[in-house]
Amino acid sequence: MTNSATNLRLKLPVACIILEVIIIILFGALVQYDNETDAKQWHKELANGSSNYDNDFYYRYPSFQDVHVMIFIGFGFLMTFLQRYGFSSVGFNFLIAAFALQWATLMQGFFHGMHGGKIHVGIESMINADFCTGSVLISFGAVLGKTSPVQLLVMSVIEVTLFAVNEFIVLSVLGAKDAGGSMTIHTFGAYFGLMVARVLYRPNLDKSKHKNCSVYHSDLFAMIGTIYLWMFWPSFNSAVTAHGDDQHRTAMNTYYSLAACTLATYGLSAVVAHDGKLDMVHIQNAALAGGVAVGTAGEMMLTPFGSMIVGFLAGTISVLGYIDITEKLKIQDTCGVHNLHGMPGVLGAIVGAVTAALATKDVYGDGMADVFPDIQSGDVEASFQGVRQAISLAVTLGIALLGGLITGFILKLPIYGAPPDTICFEDGIYWELPGEEGSHEELTTVRTPDEAEKLNA
Amino acid sequence: MTNSATNLRLKLPVACIILEVIIIILFGALVQYDNETDAKQWHKELANGSSNYDNDFYYRYPSFQDVHVMIFIGFGFLMTFLQRYGFSSVGFNFLIAAFALQWATLMQGFFHGMHGGKIHVGIESMINADFCTGSVLISFGAVLGKTSPVQLLVMSVIEVTLFAVNEFIVLSVLGAKDAGGSMTIHTFGAYFGLMVARVLYRPNLDKSKHKNCSVYHSDLFAMIGTIYLWMFWPSFNSAVTAHGDDQHRTAMNTYYSLAACTLATYGLSAVVAHDGKLDMVHIQNAALAGGVAVGTAGEMMLTPFGSMIVGFLAGTISVLGYIDITEKLKIQDTCGVHNLHGMPGVLGAIVGAVTAALATKDVYGDGMADVFPDIQSGDVEASFQGVRQAISLAVTLGIALLGGLITGFILKLPIYGAPPDTICFEDGIYWELPGEEGSHEELTTVRTPDEAEKLNA
Amino acid sequence: MTNSATNLRLKLPVACIILEVIIIILFGALVQYDNETDAKQWHKELANGSSNYDNDFYYRYPSFQDVHVMIFIGFGFLMTFLQRYGFSSVGFNFLIAAFALQWATLMQGFFHGMHGGKIHVGIESMINADFCTGSVLISFGAVLGKTSPVQLLVMSVIEVTLFAVNEFIVLSVLGAKDAGGSMTIHTFGAYFGLMVARVLYRPNLDKSKHKNCSVYHSDLFAMIGTIYLWMFWPSFNSAVTAHGDDQHRTAMNTYYSLAACTLATYGLSAVVAHDGKLDMVHIQNAALAGGVAVGTAGEMMLTPFGSMIVGFLAGTISVLGYIDITEKLKIQDTCGVHNLHGMPGVLGAIVGAVTAALATKDVYGDGMADVFPDIQSGDVEASFQGVRQAISLAVTLGIALLGGLITGFILKLPIYGAPPDTICFEDGIYWELPGEEGSHEELTTVRTPDEAEKLNA
Repeated sequence: MTNSATNLRLKLPVACIILEVIIIILFGALVQYDNETDAKQWHKELANGSSNYDNDFYYRYPSFQDVHVMIFIGFGFLMTFLQRYGFSSVGFNFLIAAFALQWATLMQGFFHGMHGGKIHVGIESMINADFCTGSVLISFGAVLGKTSPVQLLVMSVIEVTLFAVNEFIVLSVLGAKDAGGSMTIHTFGAYFGLMVARVLYRPNLDKSKHKNCSVYHSDLFAMIGTIYLWMFWPSFNSAVTAHGDDQHRTAMNTYYSLAACTLATYGLSAVVAHDGKLDMVHIQNAALAGGVAVGTAGEMMLTPFGSMIVGFLAGTISVLGYIDITEKLKIQDTCGVHNLHGMPGVLGAIVGAVTAALATKDVYGDGMADVFPDIQSGDVEASFQGVRQAISLAVTLGIALLGGLITGFILKLPIYGAPPDTICFEDGIYWELPGEEGSHEELTTVRTPDEAEKLNA
Repeated sequence: MTNSATNLRLKLPVACIILEVIIIILFGALVQYDNETDAKQWHKELANGSSNYDNDFYYRYPSFQDVHVMIFIGFGFLMTFLQRYGFSSVGFNFLIAAFALQWATLMQGFFHGMHGGKIHVGIESMINADFCTGSVLISFGAVLGKTSPVQLLVMSVIEVTLFAVNEFIVLSVLGAKDAGGSMTIHTFGAYFGLMVARVLYRPNLDKSKHKNCSVYHSDLFAMIGTIYLWMFWPSFNSAVTAHGDDQHRTAMNTYYSLAACTLATYGLSAVVAHDGKLDMVHIQNAALAGGVAVGTAGEMMLTPFGSMIVGFLAGTISVLGYIDITEKLKIQDTCGVHNLHGMPGVLGAIVGAVTAALATKDVYGDGMADVFPDIQSGDVEASFQGVRQAISLAVTLGIALLGGLITGFILKLPIYGAPPDTICFEDGIYWELPGEEGSHEELTTVRTPDEAEKLNA
Repeated sequence: MTNSATNLRLKLPVACIILEVIIIILFGALVQYDNETDAKQWHKELANGSSNYDNDFYYRYPSFQDVHVMIFIGFGFLMTFLQRYGFSSVGFNFLIAAFALQWATLMQGFFHGMHGGKIHVGIESMINADFCTGSVLISFGAVLGKTSPVQLLVMSVIEVTLFAVNEFIVLSVLGAKDAGGSMTIHTFGAYFGLMVARVLYRPNLDKSKHKNCSVYHSDLFAMIGTIYLWMFWPSFNSAVTAHGDDQHRTAMNTYYSLAACTLATYGLSAVVAHDGKLDMVHIQNAALAGGVAVGTAGEMMLTPFGSMIVGFLAGTISVLGYIDITEKLKIQDTCGVHNLHGMPGVLGAIVGAVTAALATKDVYGDGMADVFPDIQSGDVEASFQGVRQAISLAVTLGIALLGGLITGFILKLPIYGAPPDTICFEDGIYWELPGEEGSHEELTTVRTPDEAEKLNA
């Protein structure tokens, strides 16, 4: 399996070190503590009557850590379902997330966080960087098993940049709302990744077919990822909404949507899957679609009732989606991101547009100012806010598809050490495996105590 | 293994979809945002001088998420100890928890959360729903491996309802205190489940005996469950106590009780287990008994000293309980819930009654109003509060045993696709297993890189 | 494998029960609720105008739980990388942590928490006890696989005591700052453990060599530990800093340091490891060095830029450290704690000294009072604060090495049931293993559904 083309000795260190050095230089030149993390500035605020307990750390940090767990444990372990790709799933997820959150801080700062020529950082920038990272990890799911870590880093550089551009257009130019990122995170990440996967289409991938499936324990590891994503999705959708009722309501709507989605997923899995049994692929993925689908409308007055309907629909679409559309389009979508993030993301965008269009002062009261400041101020009608949301979906799809197309061609260059068709979905190509020098026997033997005792004798 | 009796194609979808549709309709008719999640209402409170930072979200949500982790990861993985029942342990846990939390919101709302004909929901209802769900999952532990998902859903419908009735009687009618649920959650869930298991007794269960045990990796997965339950139990017991010292004290008492319990568990496991070695069954379960046993008294002025004594006793009882009583009573208690939740729950109820009876104004000061409002107001003497606590234990046991009895007979109907005696504790009956169409060889082969290289050549 | 010397039936119960009884007596005599956990005292504060929302529980508890996860899941699973030592890694970690946190509460109370002859406990004492426990678990990593649980408990008794002494000297006598414990936790724990390992040197340990390595799944379990440590390290370093900007800044600096460290780790692993592949040992350990290295300076105005440089250096040192120094010194450092905690801890101490020496009023403003109260008050110059920090490192190293030396000799006594050289790194010596009475066949067979069906026929 050693092979100069896929050997990382030169490629990966060069990529990691150059990228990190660039980041460090840019941080040195451009990044500053914001008012809540800077000793001097914060103490000026204290002198003006604030309390240390007012520091936003206490109102955002628990959400941040939940999101962080989703990014590193949730996405990382969700992808360990492949029988021989666990090291890469968790390990490359770890690498590209650690890179992307730094790069995202810079890119999001450039586009919508400059204060007097400096990027201000604090807990909100940390959450936003994790969000952007999530988008990259969604795309990672589409190309899982078929890409080298160098390709993934290059993809992250471009995707993070375009994510920040799209986010700026959608939120700042178009004035859409998308707190949990149905559009900016899920739709963007999914269609970007699907387009990359399309361009990187491998006609001979079935040579690695026997590895492109799970084993018993790998599916259990993947459930760690699923359950963490499911539990903390309410924190994800609410992490950057306005304080108070907004954050509270968003978390609760998401919780109900996910619960309803789970019932739909189990019910439909038994219908669709072979022999009236449940299919782990559905449980691991479709049960999460409810979180994606309320990513835009979760902060609105969707009501628990509305949230449950949306979640139920999302689970349904997601399970049925596994009767595969993507295959016919020559997209080898390893993790089924189209079903988990793509379609539910679009559904979420539409639900958001409709819910926005129906907003009335009678329902929102003065809370309108937090959810739809432009409606409150009289700048736009609710119906026009709905139109803005719909346009934002179109823009997101456009940038994602075009960006994925270009990125796919860049990643096709034969310089990144991509695996050959015959050794996809296999850790051994990039990782020293335990027992590599030993025999197969030693690798798998479970020694009984009696045997051990003999050794001892 | 395909068999029309256990085939889920019709049964599970019907159960899931009917239940979810009923829930959605009831939510549409009855459920409203509470004042802290409703945009209009909350902004009225803001107009009256509240701050967004006063929203209860910030003071309850971190506890909620810890409880959520206990419910979905803690219980789910604790039960993966069985060698071939990991998919079902995590997966059915996921399904019935997602259902039960919705149903509990309605049932608890009916019995003690109506406001002008509507059920108000917010972070407290979310925590309470998770608590009720915990009770169902305890019962699940008693029947683990021997029930179909449809049976589990039916059990959940009834158990959640009776849980809400019992909770109403204990907390509202009898005026007992039980913040961490030694009685309402643990005693109730355990004895309900044990009674169901008694009615569902299978004389020929030893035909599945070879699967009713763990393997090395399944025990490690189970430790994920144990450790998460252990760590977050302080959050569980304190999640709905009064704000301030109550919540702080409850968390700390629980932490000390668990630490002492762990030492007792390790010490006694080495005494009791075969050959002077430690037994994973004890470590996975008995070490948690300390959390159960301070579920009632944790919020009281139990002191760290008292908490440690209670924890030490709970661990002792729990380990010794594995010298089995339940077997003689023809109760096939798969997870040993009698040892982890049953006996420690009763111990916790007694400790709570005694601690309440000893409450004095001298110790509690004005804090008496939070812990024992009726003593503070002069309505009852401390000694009578103790009596109330004791009566509550008796009521809980009665409702649990009677409810479990009836539920057991309902679940005995041969219409739910229960597994035959020969295929209990086996995922394959309800789940598509990986490699199902492949050979055994492909399922377990760990391919060395050298082998992979040959494939590549 | 049964053997009177390593049989725990008498030794472990005696150790656990005696220690727990001593602790309970001391708690009864000496420990009291602090003002924020005591019903009476807290309600006096409320009467004086405090709000329940001011209780420190709300500002420290989420950090505490993150730290708790690091201690029990992080350390516990990090050490499961050994193929046949998962039960002991998680299980002994659990035991000694549960013991150490109780003992630490007493020892830290004696040395710096007495109030009128009583030790006051609350959320801060809980965090500090977990910190001290972390130090013991670091030492555990150095002797992993070669010690009995009784030895580990004895080690914990001594190490916790010396930790409290060193902490008192460094923080209270010398006036150094060390919020995240680069010195007091990591340097102390690492060099203490390395010295114990040196004294316990086993020339014939290669008799157990075939077990002193990982297998595929054990490495995945270990990644659970790594990722949790990585994610929550910002909470660790910030858990006991001053409220407000300090806590916020410390978390953020740690986050950036870790991200940069991860890139360095991946890059260098590919350079150093065999065949240009990545090595799990590096990823599991070196990627965390960035958290250790900002344990002292994290709360200072290190800037994100500075944090990244420190993290990058820490990752580099840590990966290169695996080209082994310790082996030549006859230190059998099972987990490589020298690379993860030792060298990065010393680096962190130096960075802290330099950053302190460079502190200016211009940068810190009035925030100086929180970070460097003695500089603010004019008692010392910044440069002298740097000197204090440097002296603290020397003191820490001295106490750790001397303490480890003495402890090593105490642990060498042949009375604790230590494993023989031939059965190190093996759970079976202290744990009942699943399938212990069954055949090897039964232990590992993955039954296909078709086979199960036959059983059913």
